[in-house]
Amino acid sequence: MLASLVVYLKPRTGVSDPVNSGQALHAAFLSLVARVSPRLAAELHGGSPTKPFTLSCLQQQPERHPEAAPPASSGVFWFRVTTLTKPLFSAVDEALHGYLSTGESIQLGQDASFQIVSVQTSSMGRHSWSNLTSFSDLYELAKAASEITLQFCSPATFKQRAKNVPLPLPSLVFASYLQKWNAFSPVKFERASLLSWVEDNVAIEQHRIATTMVSFGRFRLVGFTGVCRYRALKDDTDRLKALNALADFAFYCGTGAKTTMGMGQTRRLK
Amino acid sequence: MLASLVVYLKPRTGVSDPVNSGQALHAAFLSLVARVSPRLAAELHGGSPTKPFTLSCLQQQPERHPEAAPPASSGVFWFRVTTLTKPLFSAVDEALHGYLSTGESIQLGQDASFQIVSVQTSSMGRHSWSNLTSFSDLYELAKAASEITLQFCSPATFKQRAKNVPLPLPSLVFASYLQKWNAFSPVKFERASLLSWVEDNVAIEQHRIATTMVSFGRFRLVGFTGVCRYRALKDDTDRLKALNALADFAFYCGTGAKTTMGMGQTRRLK
Repeated sequence: MLASLVVYLKPRTGVSDPVNSGQALHAAFLSLVARVSPRLAAELHGGSPTKPFTLSCLQQQPERHPEAAPPASSGVFWFRVTTLTKPLFSAVDEALHGYLSTGESIQLGQDASFQIVSVQTSSMGRHSWSNLTSFSDLYELAKAASEITLQFCSPATFKQRAKNVPLPLPSLVFASYLQKWNAFSPVKFERASLLSWVEDNVAIEQHRIATTMVSFGRFRLVGFTGVCRYRALKDDTDRLKALNALADFAFYCGTGAKTTMGMGQTRRLK
Repeated sequence: MLASLVVYLKPRTGVSDPVNSGQALHAAFLSLVARVSPRLAAELHGGSPTKPFTLSCLQQQPERHPEAAPPASSGVFWFRVTTLTKPLFSAVDEALHGYLSTGESIQLGQDASFQIVSVQTSSMGRHSWSNLTSFSDLYELAKAASEITLQFCSPATFKQRAKNVPLPLPSLVFASYLQKWNAFSPVKFERASLLSWVEDNVAIEQHRIATTMVSFGRFRLVGFTGVCRYRALKDDTDRLKALNALADFAFYCGTGAKTTMGMGQTRRLK
């Protein structure tokens, strides 16, 4: 079960600089989940460092994706949450619809209070960032294409010991997807062999990227946004099918570090 | 002895697409050197894969660097050659001045014939791409700055087995400079220890880069251009001094693969 939900919000109080709100949205999301399942919220907060969700930053309408018409005419914000497991999807869905029906506020940071005005779950609606699928569907529908183009929509970076590496290296990109795939999918991939194949045979054919500094209050991280086209230099149907499934999975799992705080939002272009 | 010479040329015959001429200029340069030293030209052609020179592509006026006024009003081309040894500098200088004084043509590719109209060697003139220095001066004058910004002016890429890596990874960038430094400089650096320090402690703080496909006739290579700012996360005066000397050396040695055919032209911004 893989879901990407787009949540529309209206501010109840003044909102200052709501886009750089990765941490605030992360905290608000955990509170929201805690209302229906304190146990699940505690697991998301602690537990494994590989989390079964991602969050975008809070976005203000008009937003970046022209196909998304606002549900209200102005002053509307939105964010996106993806869930990688069925229990988390159910809890998040229940929590969001609870907030929707009661009109209860959610708090972002110190002084911004929002009301959830709508939630979009399926791909049938107005927003290109919402969708529902499953690991098995992703895998079954994956082609064995040798060309994969990814768009890194919010800043992405990779942790390597003390350093961050803000570059779309094939080995780091696919290792990031593979780690979450194997953590949550019923169909697993053979990690070491797939990554060494990527290291040897997947090249960058084109990119246009630039860094942005992302502030998390007490610390900052550099991430890159932009587009990168990869090409497999060797034919290998099984591995290519796995890579294509992982590239499609990027929409749900995000890329690299801090994907639960707005970084690494990614989608496949082709 | 490190030299960067800018050579101005006027076409004697029609010139089609002269900028994508890495291979043609490489061949013309070897012929030119062969006129004064067939032995040296043969060494440059065969010999070690680490070559003591780089060549830009042929550039057409008006060129990219606004401070360079053309020596003639129109129809002038230029290229840049760097030499990393004293014997090669002497041979190139003698050859260029021989062609200058006789007015003899140099041939680029099948059907383009050029006359050398001037050569600029020092940094005192009109062109920011010419200069003279030495390994010991580069080393003595190098600061221990923790911030290094490089501009990759022509497409750069790195060979890694079957793949090309068109990304400014600190370890690949500095390994490329270090290899040529140690091959030609009287002052050597301790390769393994310096590179492992770079790997652990030099991060990318900012970049804005994009790829370009470079054609070499029978094959093509993807390279990146743009700007990248590196930062050392640890203080270590000796290693920082070495890195700064290597960054300044980039102007003469170029970055990565095919630097003798127009790729990897680089300069330090700060």
